[in-house]
Amino acid sequence: MHAALLQHIDDALNAALLHAELTPQLSDACRHALLGGGKRLRPLLVLASAQATGGPVESAFRAAAAIECVHAFSLVHDDLPALDNDLVRRGIPTVHAKYGEALAILAGDALLTIAFLSASSGSAPNPRVLSELSRATMRMINGQCFDTFGGFPEQFDAAARLDLVHHNKTGALIECACVLGGLSSNASASSLADLRSFGATLGLMFQIVDDVIDETQSTEHVGKATGKDREAGKLTYPVVHGLEESRAAVARLHDDARGALNRLETASIPGASTALLEAILKTCVSRTR
Amino acid sequence: MHAALLQHIDDALNAALLHAELTPQLSDACRHALLGGGKRLRPLLVLASAQATGGPVESAFRAAAAIECVHAFSLVHDDLPALDNDLVRRGIPTVHAKYGEALAILAGDALLTIAFLSASSGSAPNPRVLSELSRATMRMINGQCFDTFGGFPEQFDAAARLDLVHHNKTGALIECACVLGGLSSNASASSLADLRSFGATLGLMFQIVDDVIDETQSTEHVGKATGKDREAGKLTYPVVHGLEESRAAVARLHDDARGALNRLETASIPGASTALLEAILKTCVSRTR
Repeated sequence: MHAALLQHIDDALNAALLHAELTPQLSDACRHALLGGGKRLRPLLVLASAQATGGPVESAFRAAAAIECVHAFSLVHDDLPALDNDLVRRGIPTVHAKYGEALAILAGDALLTIAFLSASSGSAPNPRVLSELSRATMRMINGQCFDTFGGFPEQFDAAARLDLVHHNKTGALIECACVLGGLSSNASASSLADLRSFGATLGLMFQIVDDVIDETQSTEHVGKATGKDREAGKLTYPVVHGLEESRAAVARLHDDARGALNRLETASIPGASTALLEAILKTCVSRTR
Repeated sequence: MHAALLQHIDDALNAALLHAELTPQLSDACRHALLGGGKRLRPLLVLASAQATGGPVESAFRAAAAIECVHAFSLVHDDLPALDNDLVRRGIPTVHAKYGEALAILAGDALLTIAFLSASSGSAPNPRVLSELSRATMRMINGQCFDTFGGFPEQFDAAARLDLVHHNKTGALIECACVLGGLSSNASASSLADLRSFGATLGLMFQIVDDVIDETQSTEHVGKATGKDREAGKLTYPVVHGLEESRAAVARLHDDARGALNRLETASIPGASTALLEAILKTCVSRTR
């Protein structure tokens, strides 16, 4: 269904890479990180949100490429030996496993820079896109830091800590993707608020679904009740709230996200369609089975 | 002379850090990187260039903070074990030496993000500032990569390779600083061209002076004719062109930079003064003795 849009996203990413005039080594490493697969959830959300507010998807290509570059940057650096020390991602070697740590650090830096280069180029770059993107990136890095080092406010219990990590580490960029799509099609303040609400809700739902899958897949495949996150002592939604409440939370968030979509539909924006946002929501929720 | 401006720069950096709402660990690490000394050459150039084109320095504070954050980010990541593995900078431990590698990677990422957050916030962020800043950052990372990994175009001889590294690794950000100052005071296209020319010239001169100091200080203090860059097999201006030609190049570049300042003065922009740019140029050139 999204095949054409996925091709547009790859084209936009290639254009962003070319525009950066990378050295041969950086070009190889960044291409490996960016074009080695991935669901393209965030750039698809940018394009879908542009469609949902009546803008041509073309207006959102640069923002879509930018947010995928931020996502790719975060994966390259999180995979580094000093952080998660992951050697394989999506079935292929991670950037540092293939190209060494030094180039992986520089490639992550380059991808983050390419994001801002992409979002600030073109005939009429929108400063609000850049402000949203930098704010969301900052939240993502803060979330990663809380997750790795703790340092939570003293009065935060486990549930509040988990919310803080989820809201920032994964939620910020997903929320941002929806807002960027709306900004690209000059959406009204009210539509932008609906998109932000949809994105924040989807982001949290996406993470809880991930936590549930980690928990239940371990149970089914490995024959024990604890997932790898639980083993690693990480806060997850099922660890803090239990599996039943996690599934109930997903159902509630799904309703909330549907509500935001309904408000966008009710606005009857000329040429707008929420079909792609609905399809993405459906895909995310169906992962829990 | 610049004491008041240096205080303004520190205030702007503090404001940028606060605005980023960093976790306690990131805040400590970023403050260590940003506020642990440094000549503030780049932010001073931003403010001086705003003055040279008649703008109030206040309009350039955010851009000044942004470019210093990019500079600090590059130092934190370049110092990492996988790259230069430096444990001390400006007489104090580097970020990874003090806080560990994981936090140093995230702090560098945060500083780069804070740069774009700072440049895209405020009442009327200028997309050209963001475009210039991201382009210069990209050139800097490319320059670092050429310097570390090679990968030069085949037809490039030693002199061309050296130019490519200098022009990008150190030159890009110094040139950018001058352009950002001009953009902050809405300078004319012709003044922006003069500032760009001044910055590019100063950047190259700055690097050759650094190379010469490395060469001659080794000679005087260590009693041998080769500096530490030469020992490390790095391309430097004295290695490629000799010490005499290096000093001659500095003199030529000094004249070129003076020429750009003269053109700015001749433009007779109301309220403008090139005094601070001249003072910075003088400081840079006098380092060669």
